[in-house]
Amino acid sequence: MKKLINAINDVVKEQLQGLAAAHPDLVKVSYEPRYVYRADAPVKGKVALISGGGSGHEPMHGGFVGRGMLDGACPGEVFTSPTPDQIYACAQRVEGNAGVLMIVKNYTGDVLNFETALELVHADGLQVQSILIDDDAAVKDSLYTAGRRGVGTTVLAEKIVGAAAEAGYDLDQCADVCRKVNRYGRSIGVALTSCTVPAAGKPTFDLGGTEFEFGIGIHGEPGRQRLPMQSADEIVEMMVQAILDDGPYTRSVREWDRRNETWVDKTFTDEPFKPGDKVIAFVNSMGGTPLSELYIVYRKMAEMLEQRGLVILRNLVGPYITSLEMQGVSITLLKSDDEILKFWDAPVHTPGLRWGM
Amino acid sequence: MKKLINAINDVVKEQLQGLAAAHPDLVKVSYEPRYVYRADAPVKGKVALISGGGSGHEPMHGGFVGRGMLDGACPGEVFTSPTPDQIYACAQRVEGNAGVLMIVKNYTGDVLNFETALELVHADGLQVQSILIDDDAAVKDSLYTAGRRGVGTTVLAEKIVGAAAEAGYDLDQCADVCRKVNRYGRSIGVALTSCTVPAAGKPTFDLGGTEFEFGIGIHGEPGRQRLPMQSADEIVEMMVQAILDDGPYTRSVREWDRRNETWVDKTFTDEPFKPGDKVIAFVNSMGGTPLSELYIVYRKMAEMLEQRGLVILRNLVGPYITSLEMQGVSITLLKSDDEILKFWDAPVHTPGLRWGM
Repeated sequence: MKKLINAINDVVKEQLQGLAAAHPDLVKVSYEPRYVYRADAPVKGKVALISGGGSGHEPMHGGFVGRGMLDGACPGEVFTSPTPDQIYACAQRVEGNAGVLMIVKNYTGDVLNFETALELVHADGLQVQSILIDDDAAVKDSLYTAGRRGVGTTVLAEKIVGAAAEAGYDLDQCADVCRKVNRYGRSIGVALTSCTVPAAGKPTFDLGGTEFEFGIGIHGEPGRQRLPMQSADEIVEMMVQAILDDGPYTRSVREWDRRNETWVDKTFTDEPFKPGDKVIAFVNSMGGTPLSELYIVYRKMAEMLEQRGLVILRNLVGPYITSLEMQGVSITLLKSDDEILKFWDAPVHTPGLRWGM
Repeated sequence: MKKLINAINDVVKEQLQGLAAAHPDLVKVSYEPRYVYRADAPVKGKVALISGGGSGHEPMHGGFVGRGMLDGACPGEVFTSPTPDQIYACAQRVEGNAGVLMIVKNYTGDVLNFETALELVHADGLQVQSILIDDDAAVKDSLYTAGRRGVGTTVLAEKIVGAAAEAGYDLDQCADVCRKVNRYGRSIGVALTSCTVPAAGKPTFDLGGTEFEFGIGIHGEPGRQRLPMQSADEIVEMMVQAILDDGPYTRSVREWDRRNETWVDKTFTDEPFKPGDKVIAFVNSMGGTPLSELYIVYRKMAEMLEQRGLVILRNLVGPYITSLEMQGVSITLLKSDDEILKFWDAPVHTPGLRWGM
């Protein structure tokens, strides 16, 4: 294992120290318990948006803390969920009298720990809500998840809901926007190489020199199938088809019912993409794939979407939700409407995403 | 070789097609001859800034075309200089009656081809100037270069001079700013892995599992020495020392004398960094190193600069001048003054770098 790291136990702490040193105007870091928060938190009267999850996906989530996006982010160890006490402390720190919205990727550990944290925050008398992101069209269940995994749509949700909160949406309105973004987004990823978790010291899996994994998760979880390596166009064709040919999807989620102060099971059935849909298209590097290849992927994806009658209104191309140094790419399509576009275009200034300011 | 590419001969063309498809509001692409240019070029009355070089360093240079940075960029094949006809056509396309400034990285092929192109542009009666970037403190001469190589300072120069041109600086003033930025910047890079040039099909060099290359160039040229792998802190210490302990440097450059319409040989002797210097610090991924590790590098670099009495006023952390999928990192320090800072902070909107708009 060759990485630019020091002691394995210090990997997460030291990258947070670097983040804080590089962006003191945007973020501060609490080390015990561990969370990243807006330098100017709490922002009074604004819904506080927090997220979190295992480290190793940078810039997500700590790199998305700042103006117009997250108020706080709770990093676990690499590929390990944050604990409830981190999330609870973070929520307390950033709450600005307008409640806390938690954006949670659908991984079993994250779901449990954010649920516990929500109950702690609620017990303190704060307004709180959480929304699950489960957008990965690759697989139904997987190693770390019941139901679909939460992947690329998380980045888009953090941007869009962040802008909604900044614009003065209240907690229920922010939750509605977040729920909509999740229901409008679908993703698929592929890996050409494995990544190496520092504490493991060896690659998570071995793909060999001639195969790729189709439908990979962001922790190197197996996907749909392992296939002989193909051209970029063939791989992108499979990816775009997997998203566009993904049928109606019924998701079951446990959601907090704020009125009755209890958890309820909800189901939503979402329609597939269809011709005429306007989308935000997000081509993401898993960490080790360079930008040049992302543009080769973008080219074929754009061509296919045009053939299928979809219109790309906005796009994002780069490494935003990664798996350490894994080579691979994911595509996320998010159906958009005027509200989503308005919040997408709104100014944002975080270490990892910035425009308009 | 596993890459997200199609036919090897199409790699550069297809990534340009993707760039153009993703950013039609910012850039357009000419394919014969090949160059990227501002969608609204020519910008009348503004000095036109162009650069170029081998592909494989994305987002540099095509990703830096847009508002507040480059007007045009000429990509060669991977790690291969662009030809004079590309550069000439690009200059003609973007010239807006205020002259053309070429920013050229110091590689033998680039230097020769930009010189030829400059003469062609001059013969057409246009005002033209070129400035060489030679900031790599690692080595004096190398495989592709006489004198120091042009590396990370190029990115900073394109941003700063781009803003100067946007602010109305004339050709000679833009050239002066560019010359100053080059003389104020020093860089050093390390590689943990080789990259694979598509046409070669195998890694440029073999580092093995336990070594790193200190002082690497952006084409995988050998650096100062190959060493057993060390901790991030030890490697960063070597890197920062190499920059800060780099003595006075006398560069010899062939520069176009606009008044006498001839080439002249110039020498500049530049002072080393010293306590009290204010700098822009740039921590760059060579392509395959994830952001998490860049922040671990940033942390140690910032600590050392503070110990040595230097003050970081601005920073840039991410993959901006890459070597395909190479794992590694480079550090560039740029001494700054009020003029440099003002232009650094000015709004920019390109595919690869954006703020303030």
